[in-house]
Amino acid sequence: MIRVAVDAMGGDQAPATEVGGVAMALRELEPTFAVTLVGQPAAIERELSRHGDLDRTRLDVVPADDVVSMTDKPLSAVRRKPDSSLVVGMRLHQAGRADAFLSAGNTGATLAAATVILGLYDGVERATVASLCPTADGPVLIVDAGANVDCSARELINFARLGNIYMRDVVGRAEPRVGLLNVGEEDEKGGAVVRETHRALREQPRLHYVGNIEGRDVVVPHPRFGHIDVVVCDGFVGNVMLKFYESMGGLVDGVIRRDAPGLLRSPELAPLRRFLDISEYGGGPLLGVRGVTIICHGASTPRTIRNAIADAVEAARHGLRDHIEAELALQPAPHPAA
Amino acid sequence: MIRVAVDAMGGDQAPATEVGGVAMALRELEPTFAVTLVGQPAAIERELSRHGDLDRTRLDVVPADDVVSMTDKPLSAVRRKPDSSLVVGMRLHQAGRADAFLSAGNTGATLAAATVILGLYDGVERATVASLCPTADGPVLIVDAGANVDCSARELINFARLGNIYMRDVVGRAEPRVGLLNVGEEDEKGGAVVRETHRALREQPRLHYVGNIEGRDVVVPHPRFGHIDVVVCDGFVGNVMLKFYESMGGLVDGVIRRDAPGLLRSPELAPLRRFLDISEYGGGPLLGVRGVTIICHGASTPRTIRNAIADAVEAARHGLRDHIEAELALQPAPHPAA
Repeated sequence: MIRVAVDAMGGDQAPATEVGGVAMALRELEPTFAVTLVGQPAAIERELSRHGDLDRTRLDVVPADDVVSMTDKPLSAVRRKPDSSLVVGMRLHQAGRADAFLSAGNTGATLAAATVILGLYDGVERATVASLCPTADGPVLIVDAGANVDCSARELINFARLGNIYMRDVVGRAEPRVGLLNVGEEDEKGGAVVRETHRALREQPRLHYVGNIEGRDVVVPHPRFGHIDVVVCDGFVGNVMLKFYESMGGLVDGVIRRDAPGLLRSPELAPLRRFLDISEYGGGPLLGVRGVTIICHGASTPRTIRNAIADAVEAARHGLRDHIEAELALQPAPHPAA
Repeated sequence: MIRVAVDAMGGDQAPATEVGGVAMALRELEPTFAVTLVGQPAAIERELSRHGDLDRTRLDVVPADDVVSMTDKPLSAVRRKPDSSLVVGMRLHQAGRADAFLSAGNTGATLAAATVILGLYDGVERATVASLCPTADGPVLIVDAGANVDCSARELINFARLGNIYMRDVVGRAEPRVGLLNVGEEDEKGGAVVRETHRALREQPRLHYVGNIEGRDVVVPHPRFGHIDVVVCDGFVGNVMLKFYESMGGLVDGVIRRDAPGLLRSPELAPLRRFLDISEYGGGPLLGVRGVTIICHGASTPRTIRNAIADAVEAARHGLRDHIEAELALQPAPHPAA
């Protein structure tokens, strides 16, 4: 049975959201997993009592009294708060007492804790937070989703390699198509780092690199390459684009309310509105660290947490960690100069 | 009467698209303007003959035999093709024989031609292509929309100043709200250039700077500041976001076709689909040069050209050039070190 450790104290509404999400996951998902809630036991039990009968054989609580806040500096939070739910949960995973770890807390601190406690794979210098986004033709993985605002070509190449393995082994795309987000398709487009990354990705073995792609090719099929599975970009661009995408539900509602308010009551509009409720899709996998860590945003709902638990179970079940280790060994790491 | 010079040979389907757009503009818009089509006379006349009776007192043709292609290098195209429709049209504007110039051709070359022929305002080191995007609450101006992939803080500050004047004087927002696109609202967010720009924009007089904004605040009202009028970003981020936005019509169609195909026939869906057909909104004003130049993308339709002509007339009618000149003189230019 796969065990997922959940940081109960991470999100903006912790621990209510996390406990609510765990309750949903235990009730709704296939019972192939167990959950360890990590945090302040009294607060967790109080929330648990609001969810009626849960299968407590698949649920335990590990105490952690301290909390990393959204404003804590990442590295110092990890060092100065060894009894925080974040650090205790990550250590459970590192020690093999959980197969995956999940937090809706401070992203930077989670990234730092994973890097320090789990460690990075050989040849990887920086971990990345990826985000799995919906399209009408299946999900697309955006790497980086916001953790790293400035990236070297070497880092972007590693994001491509890691994202490729995730989409192949966890999401099940046979030969993921990888694109580099740019302002045009031509080789000379973009700044120096992007141009260098483009050249190097063309030389990467074991990667189905389609080339430079544009903003319009991220969630709509590319005219020649079709659906792109992995979109590589620095975290600044990735974050702006993802948050822009998140706002599309509000935009569509606003336009319909203004121009065709009768449509708001139509049941036929419900699938589109549900689709555009991007915030509920789950978390983003943290890639590059030796383990399975899923990061949710602070404003997550219980449904986000439930979906992220499903993602964590799937990643652990597919042995993501071992797969990445084995696969990276088959690929030459990008040259340090790149 | 305002005269707009139109580069007839710029777009992917030139001159058919340009001539079609001019015909639409002459038929549909208030007759406060005249048009000069610049390009190969035989090709232009052949296209004109397909549009029946047009008011030829408001339409003339200035011959230019050469054409700047999409793959020409910007500066060398301007220098080596003095008889191109781009250079001839820009010179008409510079000489005062046209009050505005419009091209759907090579953006880099149009930027270069405008910079060389019209010249930059004092204190402005680089022109910017802005894009006016629709939201349910009125348009938002994105500066830069893709012309400048790497920007200094000084350049971003000038984009904010120029975009502010455009939204106030041409679009008519009394006190435009200006936001800096970032990955979070806190002062320490973003890379070095963005942090420096944020600090400097807070000190800019005559600018209603609301602070850092996120991707979700661009086309949906900000929870505290409401509708943002001017979004400042480098051209890489701006281009990716704009093209992503352009793809939303295709995404919405794809989701509805998959999940609720009956809705596709509903007339109530028409306003949303029309709204999301971003490509037809018109062109982007080129800001920072001494004149009124509108850039359309190469894949423009006749309706895009028609709408861009309306924008050009509006900008010329409001004396955009003189306004910017006067307004910039009232504002201290950003410090060269910034």
